Amino acid sequence: MSDFSKLLSHVDHTLLRPDATQSEILHLCDEALQYHTASVCVPASYVRTCATYLQGRIPVCTVIGFPNGYSTTAAKVFETTDAIQNGADEIDMVIQLGWVKDKRWDDIAQEIAAVKTACNGRVLKVIIETCLLTDAEKIKLCEIVTDVGADYIKTSTGFSSGGATREDVALFAAHVGSKVKIKAAGGISSLTDADDFLALGAERLGTSRIVKLIQGK
Amino acid sequence: MSDFSKLLSHVDHTLLRPDATQSEILHLCDEALQYHTASVCVPASYVRTCATYLQGRIPVCTVIGFPNGYSTTAAKVFETTDAIQNGADEIDMVIQLGWVKDKRWDDIAQEIAAVKTACNGRVLKVIIETCLLTDAEKIKLCEIVTDVGADYIKTSTGFSSGGATREDVALFAAHVGSKVKIKAAGGISSLTDADDFLALGAERLGTSRIVKLIQGK
Repeated sequence: MSDFSKLLSHVDHTLLRPDATQSEILHLCDEALQYHTASVCVPASYVRTCATYLQGRIPVCTVIGFPNGYSTTAAKVFETTDAIQNGADEIDMVIQLGWVKDKRWDDIAQEIAAVKTACNGRVLKVIIETCLLTDAEKIKLCEIVTDVGADYIKTSTGFSSGGATREDVALFAAHVGSKVKIKAAGGISSLTDADDFLALGAERLGTSRIVKLIQGK
Repeated sequence: MSDFSKLLSHVDHTLLRPDATQSEILHLCDEALQYHTASVCVPASYVRTCATYLQGRIPVCTVIGFPNGYSTTAAKVFETTDAIQNGADEIDMVIQLGWVKDKRWDDIAQEIAAVKTACNGRVLKVIIETCLLTDAEKIKLCEIVTDVGADYIKTSTGFSSGGATREDVALFAAHVGSKVKIKAAGGISSLTDADDFLALGAERLGTSRIVKLIQGK
């Protein structure tokens, strides 16, 4: 396993299928414990179960305004506060993508800032759903995420028309500030993908497949 | 237009694309006014804009826990209250589908009841995402939705692996109580589909395409 331990330490071990059962979620937690992943990433309704089960041994990550990003700012703030009360350590929020198309940059920045405040020191990752954006929009969002001071910018939800690409991770690395880390997510399907994303500057990988691939060895 | 006016009166004229812009949403409202649809169905972050624009001329419908259904009950209740404060007249909520697989029927019923209370008399539609369910699960959910007293049972989000089918609408019609209406949604792509769903017992059709099809005539 030692060849893979560094890779696994970057993985948000993820199960976000709409019909995921409690036993599947607990199995995900067991795998995260066994393989020492960075976190488990689970639906909000399973955060309390995971936090109780894991007892701080692995951080619990959940998703907010997910995957379409068009709930209200008030709802995203409530979801964040609720998730943290239930034991979440990390929050992956989706921005309002219509606001990107309308260039409502201040609204986007204010929403991220409001969720960051609700995070109260927990890790905040901002999902911008790159497959729906132009490069100019991605670069503008790199600047906004940097200015607001979120911890991560994240490529994708995994529920739209495309996932992480090497080009987008490289673009993020060229345009975010030094304090903003990068999470690649969506469609990461091989160890080569994973290694490449890390080499290009990703700090986290949102995926369920890396653990499966390593188990298959 | 008169041949189509009855059909249009059953349409929740819908735009739920993640990157829908404000001008697209207002155009949807204009079409709803022109064609006298049952409602507009829009993202929660556009409810206030639509309610202000429409001034009660067309009901505003929005979606809660959408589309994956796995936010917490507390978050769904907050989203509902927030949407109603912003002017929503109708609430389309998604159930927690993992709870279906785990047969947590009481949790599902309690969640629907909590959202119904938050609706405070507004129309509540319960989306059960039929494409992920067995017929036995669909029938059980018809019973729960009836028992809790929601206004509608709805087939689909339009964001999963399948939409409304004739078989599911017929199954709903055979198993819901007399006070529960049926909404077919997802993939309704022809006037024949629409007519068939209504003939099988649907009262509402969630679609953007019917107006486009009628405009094309």
